[in-house]
This record gives sequence, C-alpha cells and structure tokens, in this order.
Amino acid sequence: MRIECIAIGTELLTTRRLDTNSVWLGERLAALGLGFHRKTAVGDSREDLGQLFREALTRSDLIITTGGLGPTFDDFTKECFADILGAELREDAKSREDMLAFYAARKRVPPQANFKQALIPAGAEALANPVGTAPGVWWADPPGHSGTRLVMLPGVPREMKRMWEEQVEPRLRALAGQQVHTLRLVVGGVPESNLDERTREARERHAHLEWTILASLTQVELLARGSDLAALEAARVEFEALLGGDLVGVGDGNLEDAVLERLKARGETLAVAESVTGGLLAARLTAIPGASEAFLGGATVYTAAAKTTLLGLPAAFLAAEGTVSEATSRALAEAVRAKLGATWGLGLTGNAGPAAEGGAPLGAVFIALAGPRGTVSKAFNQPGDRTDIQLRSTAWALDLLRRALSA
Amino acid sequence: MRIECIAIGTELLTTRRLDTNSVWLGERLAALGLGFHRKTAVGDSREDLGQLFREALTRSDLIITTGGLGPTFDDFTKECFADILGAELREDAKSREDMLAFYAARKRVPPQANFKQALIPAGAEALANPVGTAPGVWWADPPGHSGTRLVMLPGVPREMKRMWEEQVEPRLRALAGQQVHTLRLVVGGVPESNLDERTREARERHAHLEWTILASLTQVELLARGSDLAALEAARVEFEALLGGDLVGVGDGNLEDAVLERLKARGETLAVAESVTGGLLAARLTAIPGASEAFLGGATVYTAAAKTTLLGLPAAFLAAEGTVSEATSRALAEAVRAKLGATWGLGLTGNAGPAAEGGAPLGAVFIALAGPRGTVSKAFNQPGDRTDIQLRSTAWALDLLRRALSA
Repeated sequence: MRIECIAIGTELLTTRRLDTNSVWLGERLAALGLGFHRKTAVGDSREDLGQLFREALTRSDLIITTGGLGPTFDDFTKECFADILGAELREDAKSREDMLAFYAARKRVPPQANFKQALIPAGAEALANPVGTAPGVWWADPPGHSGTRLVMLPGVPREMKRMWEEQVEPRLRALAGQQVHTLRLVVGGVPESNLDERTREARERHAHLEWTILASLTQVELLARGSDLAALEAARVEFEALLGGDLVGVGDGNLEDAVLERLKARGETLAVAESVTGGLLAARLTAIPGASEAFLGGATVYTAAAKTTLLGLPAAFLAAEGTVSEATSRALAEAVRAKLGATWGLGLTGNAGPAAEGGAPLGAVFIALAGPRGTVSKAFNQPGDRTDIQLRSTAWALDLLRRALSA
Repeated sequence: MRIECIAIGTELLTTRRLDTNSVWLGERLAALGLGFHRKTAVGDSREDLGQLFREALTRSDLIITTGGLGPTFDDFTKECFADILGAELREDAKSREDMLAFYAARKRVPPQANFKQALIPAGAEALANPVGTAPGVWWADPPGHSGTRLVMLPGVPREMKRMWEEQVEPRLRALAGQQVHTLRLVVGGVPESNLDERTREARERHAHLEWTILASLTQVELLARGSDLAALEAARVEFEALLGGDLVGVGDGNLEDAVLERLKARGETLAVAESVTGGLLAARLTAIPGASEAFLGGATVYTAAAKTTLLGLPAAFLAAEGTVSEATSRALAEAVRAKLGATWGLGLTGNAGPAAEGGAPLGAVFIALAGPRGTVSKAFNQPGDRTDIQLRSTAWALDLLRRALSA
C-alpha cells in the first residue's frame, strides 16, 4: 500500500509552526506495519492544493491530509478534493447535529461560517470530531479511483490524534498485515552517547528487533520494534538488568510519571521551591492527571524578597550565601518541605540568563532534595539557552528524587 | 519566485530522523524575503525521485534538494536530474582534487565509490563542500527550463548549512527581487471564527495582501504578507483601529511578552497564586528573558493546605467557599499580591480533571485579578483535556491582566 501524507497550512512552510502531525502518524502507521512513501507540506492555496491532490491520486493508495477543514476563508481541503473528483458537497445531518450540540454545551450558537464544516463530499463518510467542530472525511473508492482511500483530518493535533485512533485505525487495520509492537525504555541522567555505547552489544544480540535512540532535553528513550512479542519480552528482561537504576520506566510514561507513581506507591508527598525554573517543575508535575495525590504545591520564588516572604529565608542568609547557590537551594528545599509538611522538598536555584547573576555564571544550577534522611544537593553546569537550562533543571531535579525513591 | 524544498532519504519518512534542514532553510529564505510554497520529504527511490523532480520542474522557479549526494548505491539526486534534463554527468576536476585533498589530510585514500561524488551534470556548477566529501550543485537555466534554478545540497546539516551560507545565499541575493514582508497581529480573548467574521470586510479591502489566520489555545494570529510596505502599514493602522482592545500586539511577541512589556513600562509588578494551572502561568512568564524585572513569583497552591500555609487563607474560609470558587480565586489573588508586595495579583482556581472536584464541574475555572483599584474576577467554562484547560486558563489570566493594563 503506497501511503502519502499531506500537511496543509501556510504556517507549516514557515518556522513558526512545524508539521508534527505527520511524525505522529508515521509512528502509528509503523505500528500497523505500514509507512509513508512521501510527505508534503503545502500552503493554503487553492491552486497548489488542487495540483498536489491530482498528483497524489495518481501515485498513492492511501492519502492522509491534515488541516484545511476549519470554518475560515483559507480552509478548503474538502472543496478541492470534491472539485477534482467531480463530487458534490452535501450537508451531513449528523455532523450538523454534532456541531450544534458542541456549541449548545457551551451555551453558544455556531457562527454562520461554521456550518460549512458539516459539508461532506457525496459518497464519502464523515468522521465525527468528539473534541472540536470540524468533522473529518473517510472516502473509500472515490470516483475514478477504485482501491484508493482518502482520509481528511483536522490539523489540530489533539483532534487529529483522537479521530485517527478511534475511527481511522480500525478501518486501516482491516486493510493492513502483521502488527508491529514497540518496547520503550526510558532512561534518566545518562547522555545519549553513553547509552548508545552501553547498549551496543546487547542490541546486536537482539538485532532481529529494530532499534532507535531518541534523546530529548529531559530523558533518553531506547525503542525496539518487532512483531515477535516473545523476542520483545526477552529484550525487556535483559535491558532492565543492564540499565539498572538508570532505567526510569518501561512503556508509555516519562520521568514525571515515574516520580509521581513511586511517591503514590510509598504514600509520600512532594513540595517544590523554584527559582531558576520559575514554576516549570510544578507545571510538569501538575500536567499529569491525579498529580495532587502526591504533589502538594510549591513556591515560585523568583526574587530574593519572595524567598523571604513566602518561605521565610532570612534576608541576611540570602545576602551571605547569594540567591544562586547550593546553600540557598538546600534552605529552599528544607523550607518548602517544612512549610507544606511534605515528605520531600526540592529546591532549585540557578542562572538561566540572560546575564550572569548573583556571582553565578550562566548555566550554573543548584538542586537540593530534603527528605526524611536529611538533605542532599548537587551542582550542575549546562550551557544552552534559557529554555534548555530550565527544562534540563527540572529533569535533574526529578531524577534526583527518582533515585532517592528507588533506594 | 516559487520555491520548493525536497528532502531526500527514506529515514526522513520514519520517526527516526526528521527533516530539520528545510526548517533551517525556511528561516534563511525568510531573511531574504523569500519562502517555500511546498516542502516534500521523499524516500531513496529512483522512481519516486524522478516523478517528483519532473513535477517540481513544472511548478517551481527554485528547487532546493537536500540529500542523496553520497557515495552509496541509494544516492542518486544528480543522476536523476541529469537523466530528466538530458544532460551528461562529467567529472569535475576541482571536485576530484578537493576529495583527494580531504582524504590526504586524513592520511587515507578515497574508496573507489567516492569518485562518483565528483560527477557533476554538464552545464551545472559544482558547489565545494569544505567540511565533507560530497560537493553540491548549482544549476541555472537547465535545458528546457530557462529561468529555473536547481540547488542540490548534502543532507548532513553541518555541510548543508555551510555551503548554503557561503555559496548559495550570495547567488540568491542577486536574484531575489521584491522582498516579502509580514504583518503579524496577535489577538487575545477572541475565538478564531469571530476574528474571521469581524475582519472579513477589511481583509477584502486589502486583498492585495495574502492573509492567514492561525489559532492556538492561547491566542489567535492574523498574518498579512506582501511586498508593498506602504500597503502593509495602511493595513496595520486600519486593523489596529478595528481590533481595538482585543489586539495584544503587532510583531513578534505573544500574550506573555505583551503583559511583561506593559508591566515594565508602568514600573509595576505581578505575583500569581495558581491552583488549577499548577505553575504553568509562572513558567510561561519566566520562560521570557528578563521576566524578573516585573514578575516577582508566586505560589503553586495545589492543595487546600498549601493555600493556608503558603498564603494564609483560613481553613474555615476554604471549607465555606470551596477550593474551586470565585471567592477563593479572589482571596488567592489578594493574598499573593499582599504577601509579595506586588502591584497586581492573579489567583486561579478550577477543575482540570480527571474528576469533578469540590463541587466544581470539569472545566470550570475562576480567575481573579487584584490590583490598585480593587479585585475583579471572571468565571470560565471550557471543556477539553487537562492540558487544554490549564493552557487556556493561563491565557485568560494573562488577557485579563493585559486589558487592565491597557485601561
């Protein structure tokens, strides 16, 4: 099956917004044992779309588009395909009802322009959008193209993903062959090149699986793909032993999930005092549903005065130790732990720029963990831009706690 | 000038390696006032490449390819273009010398296969590769395509970037005619469809500009592109008047930049007390360099106890009013403002799921702003998943403050 993906939107041709949908779709297709032969990003131009759709119909069996289903003047994915294929657009009664219900639930009336979203090419099926107003389209065997499937999905990732999983994948599974499974190992506190070297021999022993290393600012993932579940299970057992305490988890979760799960399992709680990360650590934790069972909250103590008024650090102490220092991180961790009555307190100070501050060089970060057995702290130094430093600091803090919780 | 980019390599169609080259190239082109009308990623298949190159020659004035210039069996970018255009491949003496010198410097002899890299289509120019062995190609007015330019670059980002900057950009600068400029209007607190309707007539009056609407969870952007600066300026004046207080700003910034700039201009400060957003509002603000000039910090008061211990809200008040309520948001805003001595205090409570909490339905959010003239508050209700609710809540809070700062 020759499959291509077309991402629609002028913004995707700039650096302002990138097409991440096709990456996600590529991953989902791979799990079905399928893959793209081509990916295109194209602007909201009726002429460009028409040309591209005509070409795609001549070369691909499955065409997946994302974007161009909205209510505005520059959305015309359905119109273009309907034109080319000589099909009429007709209002789909169910899509109209869904839209009215969506607005009614918000005590609003749809703007007139939105009704165009309920138009579906004759002969195609509407794909319901449970989280937005633009339905998608599944069009099997469009006029003159027997055997071809067109899938039109919204560009909003959340809507696209949900519709793909619930409505497109079941239809494709019927068409596709052997299922491919993925083993995902998440590793913390280890650079990508180190993980590459440490696992090379073991990966060679499991060469029948397809291996990938994916590094981000906060963790490294080792992925193995294959259709043989027993082989994946054997790899899991071997790699768990090999990675030991560096292994954050196996499966879908990330570092923050692993930390919250361990806290909950132990019936323990966490509070954080953030200077350099300015709330990002708390935000990463509270992004996870159910975080409140283990995460109590914290203080974003961005200024010296906030460290004093919110957490009671004496001004004289801050003047003596500096706002960016190991001693201040320790004091913050201990103060927030005591103030909120948490099992663990994390304190972070550092300098993420734009300039050197309080005598600390750009990129210097101090992280302290206060717990039932006392306080530990570490100094880090990581060049990079502001966002890099802030994000990496949250990962260091979480990994410090994760290791303490594994002990 | 119609420009397209073709990234070549089967790995670019998987999740293993993404085409970041075209993103970088898009940025460099934008600086020249140029932009892509299409971007494609395609596998190392001679048939697919041939088809794509033929199409590209019919629709684009400048075709930039990355990849497929290496010595191996699956590299044939130059061969494909030479075939299609009926040109011979000839050895380029300078490219052969460069390759010999590259290997000599490493005390090695080039493998036989590498000599194929010195082959260049007759009529084209070689682009020297100072950091690798694959030269690129600049082909102006290839046979039958007068006015077209082909640029073939290696896929290795370091090599591609250096060759682009040193050899391609100077050639393009001579060609680039009219520069294209962008007017970016950022709008807050208004849904995309509303903005579409409100601006339709005005956009029609300025139809010589190319218009795009970009919606995210936190703001909507209206973009106009054109080469006539006076026309863009006229549009700016008209749209500023039309959008009034809904206009967050013109240019590069976003909602959080606008808020911080206004605070700094007024010499005022902000503190936040976050329950539902769990630190995300603070993180959005502190992601901006220099935020500390106006943002003092805040409290992530995720539990009732934290609201009491960090900000002094009486437990009896919380029991009476509920942790998710307009009254509690107001009390939080006032408490954090007083505690940190800030000009403005924002308080956010709400229920982002997973379950209904404290009597508040999923999606209910209360935002309060305490300031020099008292406290205002608003109730919102937005279904969506946890991340959506949290992100939208930060935008509502920032927009509430932005409007107060404009008054």
